[in-house]
Amino acid sequence: MPDGVPPVVPEDGLTARERRLRPALVVNTGEGKGKTTAAMGLALRAWHQGWSIGVFQFVKSGRWVSGERAALEALGAEHDRTGAGGPVEWFASGQGRGWVRKPEDAPDPAQAARDAWAEVALRLADERHQLYVLDEFTYPLTRGWVDLAEVVATLRDRPGTQHVVVTGRGAPPELCAIATTVTEMRKVKHPFDSGQKGQAGIEW
Amino acid sequence: MPDGVPPVVPEDGLTARERRLRPALVVNTGEGKGKTTAAMGLALRAWHQGWSIGVFQFVKSGRWVSGERAALEALGAEHDRTGAGGPVEWFASGQGRGWVRKPEDAPDPAQAARDAWAEVALRLADERHQLYVLDEFTYPLTRGWVDLAEVVATLRDRPGTQHVVVTGRGAPPELCAIATTVTEMRKVKHPFDSGQKGQAGIEW
Repeated sequence: MPDGVPPVVPEDGLTARERRLRPALVVNTGEGKGKTTAAMGLALRAWHQGWSIGVFQFVKSGRWVSGERAALEALGAEHDRTGAGGPVEWFASGQGRGWVRKPEDAPDPAQAARDAWAEVALRLADERHQLYVLDEFTYPLTRGWVDLAEVVATLRDRPGTQHVVVTGRGAPPELCAIATTVTEMRKVKHPFDSGQKGQAGIEW
Repeated sequence: MPDGVPPVVPEDGLTARERRLRPALVVNTGEGKGKTTAAMGLALRAWHQGWSIGVFQFVKSGRWVSGERAALEALGAEHDRTGAGGPVEWFASGQGRGWVRKPEDAPDPAQAARDAWAEVALRLADERHQLYVLDEFTYPLTRGWVDLAEVVATLRDRPGTQHVVVTGRGAPPELCAIATTVTEMRKVKHPFDSGQKGQAGIEW
């Protein structure tokens, strides 16, 4: 675990406190496991800070509830009940909640992704959350469903201290260029390679 | 996100259900970020399954509470209060709780790590938990504080369906050899490299 002391102190004129509070843009990419789970682990840290958390799932269906969603929504409810931690809002495509229509109402996944991104952009402009998890957001970007240049400009120029985590394979170089942290989850050994099926509690 | 269908079906004589329930040994290693947070994200999935979770922090001090600890303990309390999810037990070196003595009482980190591992081994034999997070366990292994061969044998031969996640840099090849999943978190861009200091909500 890093102890918080950087090896290099940049000559950027910022005080240590300003530098400490610089908004993070974290990208978890690569073929291996852990991209989404690491983002959810970051959300736990954010919750403990009392931050408002918005999770936007760009690919996963909202028709069943993942473990991370159930747990983070329980933490959000704990906040609402006792004031501990921070509030949590969760949006998944296909769940018919808020901006995302039900699958039968939204046959166009490209439009659903654009609608989702439009909501994220609105919330960034409003400084609604302190942590945004844009789960599997690389896929609509690499498919061209959402305009990459607009996303890069919006994230780069977001106001205040809003932290953003983007997950998914094949993160575009333009996104990585403006990120503060880029990690490639590299697959060394994957259970599916040896015929293991996905299992509850591990894969969802 | 994988849809749970493996590309290869092994000729191991197992039924799909047996294969689905095979206990996982997940190793998150590498120089990049996300090793611990991904383990904590897995714990969220385990919690939602109602599994008993034991988290053992082999390096981090217990003198301050990390966000992931606060959040997972809140989820454990939610389980105790309402029956939702699963129970959570958390052990950190230096916190003077259970098997780990306070720093002033335990000047020998090697002995503390051995004590911690002995507790894990006891619990594995008892099938106490369904998910064990052995956070930063690679460090006592690579330093020779805990006997690698014994750890490998104990994890390999653990009874029942107990899932284990090990995090830390430099995971020994012998451990990776018996793992079901090994992911290298590869550092592409790290905030400390550009002088960013660690910040609450992101690094802890």
